[in-house]
Amino acid sequence: MTRAAAGPGAVADAVAAGEWPGPAAPGRRGRPRSAAAGPAVIEAVLRLVEDGACPGELSMERIAREAGVGKATVYRRWPGRTALMRDVLRSLDVPGPPLDGTSVRDDLVALLEFLRRGPAGRGSALLRTLAGHAGARPELWAEYHDTLVRARHEALLAVLRRGVANGEIRTDRDLETIADLFTGPVLARALLHERTEPPGSLSADLVDLVLEGVRPVAGAAAG
Amino acid sequence: MTRAAAGPGAVADAVAAGEWPGPAAPGRRGRPRSAAAGPAVIEAVLRLVEDGACPGELSMERIAREAGVGKATVYRRWPGRTALMRDVLRSLDVPGPPLDGTSVRDDLVALLEFLRRGPAGRGSALLRTLAGHAGARPELWAEYHDTLVRARHEALLAVLRRGVANGEIRTDRDLETIADLFTGPVLARALLHERTEPPGSLSADLVDLVLEGVRPVAGAAAG
Repeated sequence: MTRAAAGPGAVADAVAAGEWPGPAAPGRRGRPRSAAAGPAVIEAVLRLVEDGACPGELSMERIAREAGVGKATVYRRWPGRTALMRDVLRSLDVPGPPLDGTSVRDDLVALLEFLRRGPAGRGSALLRTLAGHAGARPELWAEYHDTLVRARHEALLAVLRRGVANGEIRTDRDLETIADLFTGPVLARALLHERTEPPGSLSADLVDLVLEGVRPVAGAAAG
Repeated sequence: MTRAAAGPGAVADAVAAGEWPGPAAPGRRGRPRSAAAGPAVIEAVLRLVEDGACPGELSMERIAREAGVGKATVYRRWPGRTALMRDVLRSLDVPGPPLDGTSVRDDLVALLEFLRRGPAGRGSALLRTLAGHAGARPELWAEYHDTLVRARHEALLAVLRRGVANGEIRTDRDLETIADLFTGPVLARALLHERTEPPGSLSADLVDLVLEGVRPVAGAAAG
């Protein structure tokens, strides 16, 4: 969320701006790189993962074939799969929603809506695949967590702390557990249910239900 | 939960009782089947999945090697991987916790504790793997859902309906959404976090937080 990059559209922008990861050794011979090849490779990886490929099944050959480019084109941009997967993850790292900071409730709904349509949407196949292989590929999972989980979780905790500070959220419960009450159902639906996007009303329903539960008890000490 | 089978211990019992799935064609030649081979094969599949193998990487050869038995021994029990995976899933289908039906809160805690230690424990690797390949292997995912998800979800909904009937749970909210508030955080932790078992206090904390939120508002119509 704090990262300045980089949705699928932003990838093309970065290529146009010359910011796309280039080869380690400049001045290599051969025909000019096509600006479209980088995004096509990223897109190919996402498509393969959505189709059920495991990390171990994503060879550079298969990725190149799926993207309709030569293997050398892939290797010219990425020295290996780890570097490529890092850029695939970053391509999903779109900026978080603007939080106007006036209503804790509205900011929570905005964060959950973002989660529902983001990681729980396009990125959910990647999430499931990487979570399923976190043990075998801890470096990919750590990268996913650093790129796509941490900043969002911290943004959520910051809103909850604001709610505690202004008296909307009781002080006698663990904020991590309260955070899980907001995100857990959205993630569980994305992960468990049959590839259907959770209904649009879910975010507001969850926020209202949980906020009712964490509101300070009238008459109790404010903590 | 309604199924009469069959934890890993029960597998051995079923073998001893002669109930273990036998060969399609009886009277085959060769040395007598070892009673231990069936459970060893089931255990081998679970271990491979925990180590990060995809469904596509689970060949009968690799499973046999991991179990320390011959490939023919595996094929003598299961005609193919689909039948084998079905028995792997059933081996995780332990009976649900006893619900004494007096306290809605205590029954909810018992169900969540069961979930935390069950699917969110040993079975979580299988859950992650199958969820990650639900698109590519819909038949395995459907089997997982039928064997390990549906009965537990229905048991949870039955307790929630009891809570609505006795006035502990408000009537103006969707029970499926309330059910997700209980199970979502447990599942999200099992799926997302670094293979750590959620803390033992989580179930009671979640139940108390959510029940506070879904309690009927004092003075409001009972619906």
